Amino acid sequence: MTYCVGILVQDGLVMIADTRTNAGVDNIATFRKLHVFEKPGERLITLATAGNLSASQSVLSLLSDGIENPETGEVETLFTVSSMFKAAQLVGRTIRRVYEMDGIEMEKRNMTFDVTMLLGGQIGRGQMRLYQIYAAGNAIEATTDTPFLQIGEPKYGKPILDRAIAHDTSLVEALKLGLISMDSTLKSNLGVGLPIDIVVAKRDALKASVTYRIQEDEPYFRDLRDRWSAALRAAHQAIPHPPYAEEAL
Amino acid sequence: MTYCVGILVQDGLVMIADTRTNAGVDNIATFRKLHVFEKPGERLITLATAGNLSASQSVLSLLSDGIENPETGEVETLFTVSSMFKAAQLVGRTIRRVYEMDGIEMEKRNMTFDVTMLLGGQIGRGQMRLYQIYAAGNAIEATTDTPFLQIGEPKYGKPILDRAIAHDTSLVEALKLGLISMDSTLKSNLGVGLPIDIVVAKRDALKASVTYRIQEDEPYFRDLRDRWSAALRAAHQAIPHPPYAEEAL
Repeated sequence: MTYCVGILVQDGLVMIADTRTNAGVDNIATFRKLHVFEKPGERLITLATAGNLSASQSVLSLLSDGIENPETGEVETLFTVSSMFKAAQLVGRTIRRVYEMDGIEMEKRNMTFDVTMLLGGQIGRGQMRLYQIYAAGNAIEATTDTPFLQIGEPKYGKPILDRAIAHDTSLVEALKLGLISMDSTLKSNLGVGLPIDIVVAKRDALKASVTYRIQEDEPYFRDLRDRWSAALRAAHQAIPHPPYAEEAL
Repeated sequence: MTYCVGILVQDGLVMIADTRTNAGVDNIATFRKLHVFEKPGERLITLATAGNLSASQSVLSLLSDGIENPETGEVETLFTVSSMFKAAQLVGRTIRRVYEMDGIEMEKRNMTFDVTMLLGGQIGRGQMRLYQIYAAGNAIEATTDTPFLQIGEPKYGKPILDRAIAHDTSLVEALKLGLISMDSTLKSNLGVGLPIDIVVAKRDALKASVTYRIQEDEPYFRDLRDRWSAALRAAHQAIPHPPYAEEAL
């Protein structure tokens, strides 16, 4: 399993991904799922992957080699496309190519071709954008109404984002909320695990403002988890008792 | 979809269930999912249901008529069984009977026979117990290590229970935590909806201490939701900024 979240607020973009892969609980490993394609001053693109590891890795290898755009005949990579929309189309086409290479045979063996990706970033003077790209290569985009997208195991970490993330949330609060959302997922799902990779990019900076990996026992993340648990405990204890239970219990 | 949670702590049992059923988002309805079988002073049994509505309703009807115990030849109901373990076996046998009646034909039509139940309560001098019973009729039981069980859509509401519920949690805190867990699920999943049914039973009381339905706009539940949202907001804002983001953001 996997948990990746992308949050696109007024001031910029936060991308967070865990690194655990598993084929059964007895076969777990660490693989980077958050990838950065950066040419400072020109473009900052981040790609987070979930689903079948062989499919994700093949997509990344093909993206690195470049694939031909059927309309123009040109070989494109994430370093050559001229807009984030074209970047999303390129990733979608690459996923389709991998489906043709491996997915059809996988399905014949009753395996699911279940790759999903988050693509966030900004190119030149274009808008900063955040897309979720599906196994069929189609994509949806985050908007001011729905400023975050999740892939992998979204449910444990969704309630805090639903409550707290808005378009005008500051970038550092968005980062903290993303980490809390990750913590909730880590606590409840063994398929999601440390280290955690983070990229934060301010709007129009055209470079990563923060690139960081949270390792096991990193003091700040441990402190965040402890403070959050303590605050939740205090919060539920401070809520008055239900009037209908006051006398009976 | 459905969300039901059962919490068995030192002082007693909390059962909470929503009432929304849906066959697609354009066909929603309200059905009670939390049922009480009570003979005060002798037994208090509660049954919460998730999954296919026709299967749940057929199980309840059969349980009410009673079904024959193949070992003793006697017709049993939840009012006649002599222990909670026998009650769990009776519910399991009843689910198997409904599978034979309807489930086999459902599967021929590519429908899943996906009924799951929570059975909690106490009979006479026996222990208070909480079971989760699966579509195959087999069951697991809550223990002091894992004092809560969830059916339906468990993920949104699991993090708060994972963090806060322990065997020595008081009964009224367990009720509040169950309601917070329900609120998180309501906020993130349209398939779960008000009214919410609650039963709380103190250990050895052999009757329901609280039986209550939370309707839309009930002031206490609205207040709990508001306080919880406000506390979460204050909690994440009070967490210091990550040191690695301090300068950059």
